[in-house]
Amino acid sequence: MTTLKNDRLLRALLRQPVDVTPVWVMRQAGRYLPEYRATRARAGSFMQLCTTPELACEVTLQPLERFDLDAAILFSDILTIPHAMGLGLHFVEGEGPQFERPVASPQDVARLGVPDPEVELRYVMDAVRVIRRQLSGRVPLIGFSGSPWTLATYMVEGRGTKEFAKVKGMMFEQPAVMHRLLEVLARSVTSYLNAQIAAGAQVVMVFDTWGGVLTPRDYREFSLRYMEQIVSGLTRENDGRRVPVVLFTKGGGAWLEAMADTGCDALGIDWTQDIGEARRRVGDRVALQGNMDPCVLYSSPERIKSEVRTILDSFGAGPGHVFNLGHGIHQHVNPDHMKVLVDAVHEQSAAGRQGRAAKTR
Amino acid sequence: MTTLKNDRLLRALLRQPVDVTPVWVMRQAGRYLPEYRATRARAGSFMQLCTTPELACEVTLQPLERFDLDAAILFSDILTIPHAMGLGLHFVEGEGPQFERPVASPQDVARLGVPDPEVELRYVMDAVRVIRRQLSGRVPLIGFSGSPWTLATYMVEGRGTKEFAKVKGMMFEQPAVMHRLLEVLARSVTSYLNAQIAAGAQVVMVFDTWGGVLTPRDYREFSLRYMEQIVSGLTRENDGRRVPVVLFTKGGGAWLEAMADTGCDALGIDWTQDIGEARRRVGDRVALQGNMDPCVLYSSPERIKSEVRTILDSFGAGPGHVFNLGHGIHQHVNPDHMKVLVDAVHEQSAAGRQGRAAKTR
Repeated sequence: MTTLKNDRLLRALLRQPVDVTPVWVMRQAGRYLPEYRATRARAGSFMQLCTTPELACEVTLQPLERFDLDAAILFSDILTIPHAMGLGLHFVEGEGPQFERPVASPQDVARLGVPDPEVELRYVMDAVRVIRRQLSGRVPLIGFSGSPWTLATYMVEGRGTKEFAKVKGMMFEQPAVMHRLLEVLARSVTSYLNAQIAAGAQVVMVFDTWGGVLTPRDYREFSLRYMEQIVSGLTRENDGRRVPVVLFTKGGGAWLEAMADTGCDALGIDWTQDIGEARRRVGDRVALQGNMDPCVLYSSPERIKSEVRTILDSFGAGPGHVFNLGHGIHQHVNPDHMKVLVDAVHEQSAAGRQGRAAKTR
Repeated sequence: MTTLKNDRLLRALLRQPVDVTPVWVMRQAGRYLPEYRATRARAGSFMQLCTTPELACEVTLQPLERFDLDAAILFSDILTIPHAMGLGLHFVEGEGPQFERPVASPQDVARLGVPDPEVELRYVMDAVRVIRRQLSGRVPLIGFSGSPWTLATYMVEGRGTKEFAKVKGMMFEQPAVMHRLLEVLARSVTSYLNAQIAAGAQVVMVFDTWGGVLTPRDYREFSLRYMEQIVSGLTRENDGRRVPVVLFTKGGGAWLEAMADTGCDALGIDWTQDIGEARRRVGDRVALQGNMDPCVLYSSPERIKSEVRTILDSFGAGPGHVFNLGHGIHQHVNPDHMKVLVDAVHEQSAAGRQGRAAKTR
């Protein structure tokens, strides 16, 4: 294995000192980049792009050519596991992901098995291996999965939803069935992430996109509990280094303390929380990743720089901060603004450290 | 003026003792009721229904015929003020509200004036008067408005949005222009709610549907500050009784303490907060209104009753609770389930009081 040249991300996620604050951005390989749109067009469909390791590798690396990012994140979809379970994932232009065979009954749940990551999800593992080879130790590679609750929402609803009536219907009326579904999903996610780690992922992140639509009681019982199960089941080492685990619940600011107690290394937070306040709440248990409002990237370079300043100042001195947006980058953002963001994080956090060092002298 | 026969809502909002916990539901006059759909069809359009006082009165009273509710809420739209300012509100089937002339420039903002509620919004005041007459003191009437920030989002975006790119663009790049817009909206909302109170509204509520998409800093500067200005400008009396003011920011659970400090009487809370925890945070400063997940109404009567129990128990003993959903009732809910909810709140809270009284003896 090649040596990791830039290990800021790993160090910051484990709350170790770094020279400057590392930065990466959710959906950094995505539609706001013209080169991504070109590869996507060449692939023919989004699914083709996801399932062809060489193309997934190509788009994963694209943002690293333009920006001084401290991490690459595997290009894939959060719904690969239900697809591997046989639900028939497809994408309808302008409508997002849909399943041909949603989960509707206890029988449907009983039929679901844990996919073998090196068989049904081989294309993902191959992508991880190709990307690691191409990266040759430049920055670490982040693997990821959707959370069991988030996967369950799509599997039961069959598509995106605003009301969540079907999946909550199952949760309220047939909690035992819902727990069986979440149980098989938790085992599948654990096996999937462990396979990504074995294939070369150096950090893993669980995206709980829809945990924030639950009451605090239901969140603990139907989302957090299964993420905790995943965290305990993960192989936490790769190339002799610890593999940090990041949990991110969109809209989950109310439950940061409980999330920090799962044994994960870091929490992603969205922009509706003050990151300094979040840090006071979780203390030294976990690192924090976030949390700029993605809409700030539509603003002028000066405004972007001042928002970076505000967030770095709010987090304050000491280790444990990975800069990110609070959600995926929007598709109409000017890529030059992304460069302003990445450079501002490095420059300002370096200056901050010198300033503080000067004061200490 | 006729005497108010059921004043539980007013008492609970002012944290005074009540015999049972009062209950009403956001959008209780709405599409889940077949009689509403019939009146809506007769009106021809949603705008026609809103702007015809007799029809607005008819649908306002419909849920009171079916359910033992403790309040009526004026049937209207949150976007009446921008419509009165000349933006041209219309509703596109399946797409929600849209404005013909959105606010795009500093010049557009400079042109906006405070509407005269008894002229441009006369149809709303007439509806309040007709409803009060028809209610003849049965339950109190709640008047309402959208918050300045929420009105501004629709006025700048021109329609519903998921990204809020335009309105946040103005906020980030032209904060002075945004403040001018919010200032004229705060004066308009104050005048609009005071006119509703003069016409007969016995409680007023400000709906801040989109405050939850802001950072804590931006929320305080661009949403909360203007709601506070409105609260201080309201006539707080009607028929010799205090008119309670309720603030509701969807997704605003992080800022309950700051909201309670505005001088309002009560806070609406959504279901992502534990109501007992919210009560501990705001102490005796305000009453709380909420907070059942609207999706529970898709469940069985038994499940609805158990959720009512959980919420009443979480709030605990003592005054200051108005039962409500955490958001508007969904359109496909069976009206019989709404009856289960309303009756369960009354029965269980009465039993709870007897139980506690028995223990005290």
